[in-house]
Amino acid sequence: MTSSGRPGDASGAAEMGTLIDQIRSIVGPAGLLTAPEDFSSYACDWRKRYSGRPLAVVKPASTAEVARVVSACAETRTAIVPQGGNTGLCGAATPDASGSQIVLALSRMNRILAVDPLNDTITAEAGCVLSRLQGAATEAERLFPLSLAAEGSCQIGGNISTNAGGTAVLRYGNARELVLGLEVVLPSGDTWDGLRGLRKDNTGYDLKQLFIGAEGTLGVITAAVLKLFPLPRSRATAVVGVQTPDQALGLLNRARGVGGERLTAFELFSDFCLSLVLKHFTDTVAPFRRRFPFYVLVELSDTQPGEGVRILAEKVLGSALEERIILDAVIAQSETQARALWKLREFVSEAQAREGPNIKHDVSIPISRIAEFIAATDAELARAHPGVRMVTFGHLGDGNVHYNVSSPEGAAAEEFSRNPGAINRIVHDGVARFGGSISAEHGLGQLKREEILRYKSPLEMDLMRSVKRSLDPLGIMNPGKVL
Amino acid sequence: MTSSGRPGDASGAAEMGTLIDQIRSIVGPAGLLTAPEDFSSYACDWRKRYSGRPLAVVKPASTAEVARVVSACAETRTAIVPQGGNTGLCGAATPDASGSQIVLALSRMNRILAVDPLNDTITAEAGCVLSRLQGAATEAERLFPLSLAAEGSCQIGGNISTNAGGTAVLRYGNARELVLGLEVVLPSGDTWDGLRGLRKDNTGYDLKQLFIGAEGTLGVITAAVLKLFPLPRSRATAVVGVQTPDQALGLLNRARGVGGERLTAFELFSDFCLSLVLKHFTDTVAPFRRRFPFYVLVELSDTQPGEGVRILAEKVLGSALEERIILDAVIAQSETQARALWKLREFVSEAQAREGPNIKHDVSIPISRIAEFIAATDAELARAHPGVRMVTFGHLGDGNVHYNVSSPEGAAAEEFSRNPGAINRIVHDGVARFGGSISAEHGLGQLKREEILRYKSPLEMDLMRSVKRSLDPLGIMNPGKVL
Repeated sequence: MTSSGRPGDASGAAEMGTLIDQIRSIVGPAGLLTAPEDFSSYACDWRKRYSGRPLAVVKPASTAEVARVVSACAETRTAIVPQGGNTGLCGAATPDASGSQIVLALSRMNRILAVDPLNDTITAEAGCVLSRLQGAATEAERLFPLSLAAEGSCQIGGNISTNAGGTAVLRYGNARELVLGLEVVLPSGDTWDGLRGLRKDNTGYDLKQLFIGAEGTLGVITAAVLKLFPLPRSRATAVVGVQTPDQALGLLNRARGVGGERLTAFELFSDFCLSLVLKHFTDTVAPFRRRFPFYVLVELSDTQPGEGVRILAEKVLGSALEERIILDAVIAQSETQARALWKLREFVSEAQAREGPNIKHDVSIPISRIAEFIAATDAELARAHPGVRMVTFGHLGDGNVHYNVSSPEGAAAEEFSRNPGAINRIVHDGVARFGGSISAEHGLGQLKREEILRYKSPLEMDLMRSVKRSLDPLGIMNPGKVL
Repeated sequence: MTSSGRPGDASGAAEMGTLIDQIRSIVGPAGLLTAPEDFSSYACDWRKRYSGRPLAVVKPASTAEVARVVSACAETRTAIVPQGGNTGLCGAATPDASGSQIVLALSRMNRILAVDPLNDTITAEAGCVLSRLQGAATEAERLFPLSLAAEGSCQIGGNISTNAGGTAVLRYGNARELVLGLEVVLPSGDTWDGLRGLRKDNTGYDLKQLFIGAEGTLGVITAAVLKLFPLPRSRATAVVGVQTPDQALGLLNRARGVGGERLTAFELFSDFCLSLVLKHFTDTVAPFRRRFPFYVLVELSDTQPGEGVRILAEKVLGSALEERIILDAVIAQSETQARALWKLREFVSEAQAREGPNIKHDVSIPISRIAEFIAATDAELARAHPGVRMVTFGHLGDGNVHYNVSSPEGAAAEEFSRNPGAINRIVHDGVARFGGSISAEHGLGQLKREEILRYKSPLEMDLMRSVKRSLDPLGIMNPGKVL
């Protein structure tokens, strides 16, 4: 393994011309964009926080093409930025401004390669859009549980590369837990075929784990074998009013103990979140006549059809109400009502965006301490920045909240959100104090690459760098991200 | 990182004396065995296939002691063989015969550090015996689901290092899926504190995955945070007679579709297995008056108490019987009957051992192809080695069978099993043809270190070696195992 050079440095304009010609000969004209006016949707991230200037956008049609493109880039020390649906929230798929990096977009590699209901697996290329995968599973009377706001445009390769979370983690795990096998083009241009569909395989190091959640810094995921699950045949959806997140946790403990793995969603949102949704989505209605400080969306589901799961939900919520663990509850009586309740939670992200910018955090805390974290950090923020308004919502059942901070009423939201440093410090130091993570499901990308240095030990950073060096000695794979 | 030297080479007897003195000063006399007569239970594996000669057996009492011992070994390039309960089946915990390796036994580090029911986690030192962990979980009204034959003596550190499987994988996953955080002493002697209790953490590479299933070749696991689950409150246990493994898979598909995650066990055993159990365990009784070619032990469980899960089992098995998917079924009517049915499956391992040696395989195949694999390989073995008797049993629901081959009736079992090469070739080549793994849950250790080279690509082996080099550049951590 040779020492790493800074990618891009060695290559003059003439050599770049050669590289582009070489890439064109690999992917054909349909697979190559070189005109800056065609770059826009690839050069900027979804939130419009990061904007770069790629040398070219390359769209291979097969794994073999990816491998040849990566080889050509390795030869010229050209940096590669793998890109899926470009819906990431931390800028991991955005090239830098040097004009020397290529964006490798997987969108043309979008085939479902196999569905095997008896093995409970689906195999797909990396560019397959998540909602298509979900649909193919349903057609086979199976569930592919990964579900998140961007599911109509995010791609499974990106989901795996960021170890995506979403609303089904409580029951089915993160993207990592759903992967059985991977095919990866390594930074050398070699293709590792780890496309296995096995539940058990203890023949050495589990290499696929390296690439899951690595945000494209160790290789390009080109295909995956994913787990399927039995299709739920009944569902009960409820919204519950509580005084505090701590009360919500009391209900979580109860619901999981009684319902077991029927509990498929446990999502928190504050009354301020609800007010934003009601304001910006006029077709939504408040779940109760009264308002409560916090709400929880609870969902139970079962492979058994019928009323069993609704009766169970009534039992759990009824006894919680009697024992004053919760303040009120409404259970959907139809699929339409269930959809309406889900909207109150799902629209929070978009409602806060319409309201104006705020300072976002995606944190996780051990579930037993998350209520304490919220209370302590709310208090500390209120002391240090009087009047700030908390947009607190997320996957409480996973210990994961999007703990966003809005400017005081009347203050300039733009200016407030442009200077997140002091707020981040309070929130992230709090996270560290409570044994949590400053990026629960969004990754590091560019956004938290510096911030993480404050919270991870130098030893852990060294270990990560050592893994990076051993797989990508030239440093061409998505440089400037994660590490 | 420097180039690796062969461990032990550089160290003369004088230096070894110094090392032992140094280790004694770290762990005290209670933590050090140097007399060969004290080595016996540490120097030989459970199956008595491998026997080594350690320089010393070191039993640290804390992570700090482990770190200092590993540092001292790194300084003198002394190889370290981490050892848990020493119940492994592939010789991964046995030292070589050179007299230059130390066995690092974790048995004194056996404390349960924390139980957090609301976070659904338990934290324990590596030397904690599995059954104690299970017990501590039950006391907190939670389930720690990992369960295997050796649970009374195996240690959680070893379970994690070998990514142990067992009878609960179908529902709860392998050991890997149960780990949230790890503490590891690295080959450098540094301690990596990754002892987090988070369900979601996307802050860079998921380093714990490297150490899980690495069989002690990348570091010494000293503690872990593990997932707990709601305690099942009802259970239905049945044994089913089927004509073929293919029929059993028909039932699996049905049971999983209807029962969902209530299905917690789906274990196959052949009639020959049953006959061995009945012969060697006189307190067991056949489940049916008739005999069938194969049997499946099916278990459903539920967090809901009451009769629901038994009624569901009756429904699934009743309809399968009507449609002739299965040939007969018996459902336990009491806990005692359930235990009696479980014995028929659990005693297979021991019954075959009492019968005499055979040639063992621990293979996995995509579930949809495992019946085909068994039929094809049975036929090929019968052709090439007429009269051999198959001891086929295992975790069919995971696609994992222990596909063991006994000598023809009347032939010398000892001699037969001493020459496994030709049989292994047929079985493992078959596994490869069907897209399977030659070690589903037992690991590679010493036993399959050479064999795996036939089935894994040179690229994959290179990737593994590169990970090994980057974490253990001196090559002192359990050399001669896995790689």
